[in-house]
Amino acid sequence: MTVQETIHEMAVRARAASAELARMTTSAKNDALLAIAKALEAHADEIRGANAADVARAKENGLAPAMVDRLTLTPARFDAMVAGVRHVASLPDPVGETIWTRERPSGIEIRKVRVPIGVIAVVFESRPNVFIDTAALCLKTGNAVILRGGKEALETNKALAAAVKSAGVGDAVQLVETTDHAAVTELVRAVGLVDVAIPRGGERLIRAMCEAALVPVLKHYKGVCHIYVDDKADLAMALSILDNAKTQRPGVCNAAECLLVHEKLAPLFMPMVEAWAKDKGVTLHENEAGTEYLSLDINVAKVADVRAAIDFINANSSHHSECIVTNDAERAAEFLRDVDSACVYHNVSTRFTDGGEFGMGAEIGISTDKLHARGPMGLEELTTYKYLVTGDGVIRK
Amino acid sequence: MTVQETIHEMAVRARAASAELARMTTSAKNDALLAIAKALEAHADEIRGANAADVARAKENGLAPAMVDRLTLTPARFDAMVAGVRHVASLPDPVGETIWTRERPSGIEIRKVRVPIGVIAVVFESRPNVFIDTAALCLKTGNAVILRGGKEALETNKALAAAVKSAGVGDAVQLVETTDHAAVTELVRAVGLVDVAIPRGGERLIRAMCEAALVPVLKHYKGVCHIYVDDKADLAMALSILDNAKTQRPGVCNAAECLLVHEKLAPLFMPMVEAWAKDKGVTLHENEAGTEYLSLDINVAKVADVRAAIDFINANSSHHSECIVTNDAERAAEFLRDVDSACVYHNVSTRFTDGGEFGMGAEIGISTDKLHARGPMGLEELTTYKYLVTGDGVIRK
Repeated sequence: MTVQETIHEMAVRARAASAELARMTTSAKNDALLAIAKALEAHADEIRGANAADVARAKENGLAPAMVDRLTLTPARFDAMVAGVRHVASLPDPVGETIWTRERPSGIEIRKVRVPIGVIAVVFESRPNVFIDTAALCLKTGNAVILRGGKEALETNKALAAAVKSAGVGDAVQLVETTDHAAVTELVRAVGLVDVAIPRGGERLIRAMCEAALVPVLKHYKGVCHIYVDDKADLAMALSILDNAKTQRPGVCNAAECLLVHEKLAPLFMPMVEAWAKDKGVTLHENEAGTEYLSLDINVAKVADVRAAIDFINANSSHHSECIVTNDAERAAEFLRDVDSACVYHNVSTRFTDGGEFGMGAEIGISTDKLHARGPMGLEELTTYKYLVTGDGVIRK
Repeated sequence: MTVQETIHEMAVRARAASAELARMTTSAKNDALLAIAKALEAHADEIRGANAADVARAKENGLAPAMVDRLTLTPARFDAMVAGVRHVASLPDPVGETIWTRERPSGIEIRKVRVPIGVIAVVFESRPNVFIDTAALCLKTGNAVILRGGKEALETNKALAAAVKSAGVGDAVQLVETTDHAAVTELVRAVGLVDVAIPRGGERLIRAMCEAALVPVLKHYKGVCHIYVDDKADLAMALSILDNAKTQRPGVCNAAECLLVHEKLAPLFMPMVEAWAKDKGVTLHENEAGTEYLSLDINVAKVADVRAAIDFINANSSHHSECIVTNDAERAAEFLRDVDSACVYHNVSTRFTDGGEFGMGAEIGISTDKLHARGPMGLEELTTYKYLVTGDGVIRK
């Protein structure tokens, strides 16, 4: 079989599985999740062995230490992954929820109800826990999922897939085993079989998928988050938020990458920033608007006022998360209204852009797109809806 | 300037206009809509003159009569178009609505609020009223719009655009005047400037746009709607629904294209169907599953039971609108749950799939996609949301 035929056959099987999944009760889906958690524990040795082989090969091939680290399924990460599956089982099921009902003068009654999307294709890179996290979220929401991981994690992913399969979920969770990139192209062009593709990886992967895609893609390019410190800010609060947003976890997408300072405040505040940067090992940059460092680096610019800050952000941010620090309610309201990003903060660190922190229970990613889902994507964002219309022989006049 | 440069410049202007539009109050937007309605009336002669020129050229070029009809802006259609703008002004504004608020244990307060999408690109075919309808819906929801019509309607669209421009809406509504197809390609690839593309036309246009697109596309391929008549149906009701769904307006996407009859009922019901077809001039077909006739033709098939009907529909429909006629509540529930279409009906004609009939006030189209919008798309579907997060110096632990 060609790669195209293999993927097509998997997609056909996923479509059939999705019809079954859509009919499953919440408790049946939760039982399946708990069975997966048990199966992972039962297969722990095979999974760790496969991961050790992947890690050894990666080191041989001279993979960067950061990549090798991401690839490694430590005992703590393994346990967290299994606990994650059980946590998803404990969350409320959004499927079946009635969003609204309406009686119309024509005599029809309309119910808008939440249903699974259908078949989801997820392409991810080296972190093997993504396979299990994603499978659990899709299963919980009644979606079939086809996963394609990075080639360096193939043995680990195969072992994880075997464990999941042993839990009896049939074709609900399928792993693409070929490392041929044509598989990804075929997946994102499978109109009528795949309903949405979700890349979980770097910008290059995302761009390649969007370029090839005929099915919708839910994506997050990058996180270039801004902190604007207004001249009416509490300086201690501003420094605390800056410190948290930049240094608490610099490698993540909701970390701050650019500090904007009101020019009137700069003579007072910049020395504080410089002292903080020296203390925390942060490097301050200038004229690097739009850069995603993911490290202890931050771009700094002065702006004339809140309006200039808003314009700077809308021109240079990745529309992910931005914050204003001010005690002026009017300026805060203007910033919240006019900044065109998924999450806009007033006197709160940007690090809160996260499904867990937002009370979603779990997260499949953060969308910087505006359609379907924007910001953290939890279980609800893995669903769509349909209209159920009932009446007593009603016809249109 | 090349076509690419022209489109890029229009998109940059639309992006700037969208920032202004997002800040406009509902009453300012409604005033702009009423000014457009007045301007259309003031420019009626120029618009009708331009349309007459388009129609004359279309006839000269031997355009099909149905196409010439679609292109013609009769006085009645002109009045309906202007009344439509005033109607949109009278509708509630979804922008600014709080979808939910949440206080989190961390001390942050989250508000999920409805906001405009930003810049919308609409590509349509020969009906010139689409230009005004779309402009009104986008303006009402605070979106800037770039419209590209069919080349046969170019003079009409230019006259309509001039009237809209005279109402003082700046770059909120822009018409692409070039007929070069490269303009469409550039529009749907303008990531960061165009937020979504909406094709309003035939399947070929939609496929071409999806093939080229890097921005999300909201679309509706076709309407292949099914009526399943169960053996526990009221036969008079079944015939009435079939008649309404097939003959009331056969050329539209929510008209029935396929009748499924329970095999036990067929000996009794098929003679009634044949008599009805003869009476109404409907041609019955066999073995043409999945065909969109848009005429007085319908495919007919027998199925073993409701499960077979569901499977037939999920395999052959366009996932638009389907109906079960039955007095059996359990079978109805099974059909409503398992048919994977935007609108699923029980004892109601499929002709109700419509923004007006659903109480949305207006409609920009019907989506057969599952992401962002499914089924009729009204004003709410032209919006997205953002999260506003406030606190008192809250940082992540």
